[in-house]
Amino acid sequence: MFESAEIGHAIDKDTYDAEEPVLREALLEAQYELRQQGRFAVLILINGIEGAGKGETVKLLSEWMDPRLIQVNTFDQQTDEELARPPAWRYWRQLPPKGRIGIFFGNWYSQMIQGRVHKRFKNAVLDQAINGALGLEQMLCDEGTVILKFWFHLSRERMQARLDSLKDDPLHSWRISPLDWQQSRTYDRFVRYGERVLRRSSREHAPWHVIEGADERYRSLTVGRILLQGLQSALQQAPPHPHGSAPPASLDNRGLLDSLDMQQSLSKELYQEQLAAEQARLSLLMRDKRMRRHALVAAFEGNDAAGKGGAIRRVTGALDPRQYRIVPVAAPTEEERAQPYLWRFWRHVPGRGQFTIFDRSWYGRVLVERVEGFCSPADWLRAYGEINDFEEQLVDAGVVLVKFWLAIDADTQLERFQEREQIPFKRFKITEDDWRNREKWPQYRDAVEDMVNRTSTEIAPWTLIEANDKRFARVKVLRTINDALQAAFDRD
Amino acid sequence: MFESAEIGHAIDKDTYDAEEPVLREALLEAQYELRQQGRFAVLILINGIEGAGKGETVKLLSEWMDPRLIQVNTFDQQTDEELARPPAWRYWRQLPPKGRIGIFFGNWYSQMIQGRVHKRFKNAVLDQAINGALGLEQMLCDEGTVILKFWFHLSRERMQARLDSLKDDPLHSWRISPLDWQQSRTYDRFVRYGERVLRRSSREHAPWHVIEGADERYRSLTVGRILLQGLQSALQQAPPHPHGSAPPASLDNRGLLDSLDMQQSLSKELYQEQLAAEQARLSLLMRDKRMRRHALVAAFEGNDAAGKGGAIRRVTGALDPRQYRIVPVAAPTEEERAQPYLWRFWRHVPGRGQFTIFDRSWYGRVLVERVEGFCSPADWLRAYGEINDFEEQLVDAGVVLVKFWLAIDADTQLERFQEREQIPFKRFKITEDDWRNREKWPQYRDAVEDMVNRTSTEIAPWTLIEANDKRFARVKVLRTINDALQAAFDRD
Repeated sequence: MFESAEIGHAIDKDTYDAEEPVLREALLEAQYELRQQGRFAVLILINGIEGAGKGETVKLLSEWMDPRLIQVNTFDQQTDEELARPPAWRYWRQLPPKGRIGIFFGNWYSQMIQGRVHKRFKNAVLDQAINGALGLEQMLCDEGTVILKFWFHLSRERMQARLDSLKDDPLHSWRISPLDWQQSRTYDRFVRYGERVLRRSSREHAPWHVIEGADERYRSLTVGRILLQGLQSALQQAPPHPHGSAPPASLDNRGLLDSLDMQQSLSKELYQEQLAAEQARLSLLMRDKRMRRHALVAAFEGNDAAGKGGAIRRVTGALDPRQYRIVPVAAPTEEERAQPYLWRFWRHVPGRGQFTIFDRSWYGRVLVERVEGFCSPADWLRAYGEINDFEEQLVDAGVVLVKFWLAIDADTQLERFQEREQIPFKRFKITEDDWRNREKWPQYRDAVEDMVNRTSTEIAPWTLIEANDKRFARVKVLRTINDALQAAFDRD
Repeated sequence: MFESAEIGHAIDKDTYDAEEPVLREALLEAQYELRQQGRFAVLILINGIEGAGKGETVKLLSEWMDPRLIQVNTFDQQTDEELARPPAWRYWRQLPPKGRIGIFFGNWYSQMIQGRVHKRFKNAVLDQAINGALGLEQMLCDEGTVILKFWFHLSRERMQARLDSLKDDPLHSWRISPLDWQQSRTYDRFVRYGERVLRRSSREHAPWHVIEGADERYRSLTVGRILLQGLQSALQQAPPHPHGSAPPASLDNRGLLDSLDMQQSLSKELYQEQLAAEQARLSLLMRDKRMRRHALVAAFEGNDAAGKGGAIRRVTGALDPRQYRIVPVAAPTEEERAQPYLWRFWRHVPGRGQFTIFDRSWYGRVLVERVEGFCSPADWLRAYGEINDFEEQLVDAGVVLVKFWLAIDADTQLERFQEREQIPFKRFKITEDDWRNREKWPQYRDAVEDMVNRTSTEIAPWTLIEANDKRFARVKVLRTINDALQAAFDRD
């Protein structure tokens, strides 16, 4: 894989001097066009051998192009806010918005290779990490991001020579390379595991470009050309109109929702007794020392007027307001629209010990956006996988995740709508949209069925709540949260 | 100040039961109206004696109102990202957006009182902190935020009794009050310094409300009524149309800009020599160990086509792209518009060791927004003071702040505009707006004069750059940054 990057590629000065200004102007033009279009972001990943010109190349790109539209990020030591969340959180918070170029210098690949080189884990874990990276990149590409991955290579001899020369150069001596690079064993291991990573993470939509780093002119022009080509081809492409087809509706027109026993209810007395008991239980669980190792995320979805707000209030009623945060999910803001779909949820992922309630959630993609046609079928079809992946990352980081669908039948909804229109302080809760959504009841039902079938997983199961009776629904919500917390604590 | 909160206020159960539902409904209605209008945010500060019902009240408010539109923040231990920035950064990042209610439970007041009670500093420092808080609150109010400050009080005897009873209550025993509250000396000191803080920080636009905390019904209804009144009166008020008058123009029509020697220039050779020297100097200074105690902020303003971009590129050319971040300032995003003006700059304040370049800056308020009428005269007139205060906070936290006005004369601008229209890859740099702005040359000149007169301070002076000659300008910019860094290091 690295053979052709050890043959001593070089470009003579005249060729370079002739090509450089042309390339530079074209890059600048492409960069402004990128901003004008504002259709997609560009993410450049920089990896490779120490001393192979990674830093110099990033610097050069910033000089050639308009540095105001480029954002270079390094990922060294994690801050404590990052350590308290899933590992990918630090990357999500630094993603470039549409119209911009982000350079991740040090990224998921550097971390996995370092870990393997220093024997902190074996190949199985490395391969898991590679798959995780591929999932993230696939998702970014699907959202329109152009990803360019560069691996800067040097043969061992050239690396040694270069490190020696840097050491003697007073202008560069401050950049003393990490000690371990002085050992040729490190080089061997780095190349071996780098090769594994490259082999397994090259994809058509995000291939690796291996660059021989020995000759500065060759290296610079090559990277510049690849970047220009990537930019231009993405700028000239019409926005993709991906196709996809909806899952078939159930043949016998029966589904999970039909199988719910909607008659379930609780008497006022039983309700008060059970509510108090479950609230006390939640209050105790949240104060349990084991909570410090976990975070709690509760996502509430449901038919309009199914009682999400009331259920949420019964959950928070058990708690000190400092213990939770509610994120109401409505139309995305401008900054959120300039990012991949899940960005607006990643930014609210709680740190350890914290509890976040999403009042509507990332499932909007496969519910309202699907039914109302706010996104293409391809978008919502691939969202199932993206969401499963997102949730797995949460759970892997110790998050206890509960997801509720509050279901009512059409008659109950009608009653509640009419009631809302009559009570003055409830009139804010009913809008034209609600009536319109109601007309699409069958489409929503199909969307819910598909959602549950495709995203109710062992690590993050859906809980369907029979919500015709509000009392029954509220107690079931609380009990589900408590059981999930208890189970997580028991597993610790 | 606390006398009337020690007399044993109480409300009987019947009165409470009659009033509570009415109050609750009115609060809910006001809250939805707040969201509908989306005109201002509400910030509630909660302070006072341990055991006086602070937590219970916050919990009750979350129950009475829609908790999805309330955001409760506590400010305990600072995270390392917060510790690396000015103290106010942690408050800015949690400010509620317009349409929402934020409750700061533990805030600037708790921190200053704790510090004084535990003798970490004397009254002089306490008074400084009070003035800082007043400045922040004034600014928030000017931006439309409604601030309600509650002090929960208890006489010493009642506090002691309440702490004792909590200790015995199994439901509350986990909330063991901090040890020091068991000592009556702490109570005395807390009340003494609390009194000082309240006395000095009550303002017409943000008064303190002292609440006797002994009786739950009294406490709850009182807070609820004050909040309702505050909300309703703000909702009914027409948006303020504050008045203010522009500073008089200079009588002899001469100003700072006229006194610049615009003929200054550098030959190509001198330029290359000096540029290389200053770039090397910057590179060394940024790697100096003392940089770890500082951050660097450079704000670039100037006439259109004065060469800001080119100057910035010469600064960044000296550096590794990982060492700086460029924030291009354009129209605010939706999330930024829902916050006080300076929020969009606070969010980019660098941590220690970092360097942020603002390509246009917070001075937009007194330049383009003033001249184009994007804000009222009152808004930009008070911006001078707000900006000085902002910059003082940066400098107090160790930030080295340099501010550049790149000045060219009208003829030079015309030449450059025409050139831009002819060179293909520069055509992105010239728009209709630029030609329109040019017609307002005299108004911009006045705005710049006023800006420099009012915001060039000892801690954050303006540097006017004679930029007809780009070479001269670039070297002067770099030298100014270097001198400022050097001076800061020398002072350490």
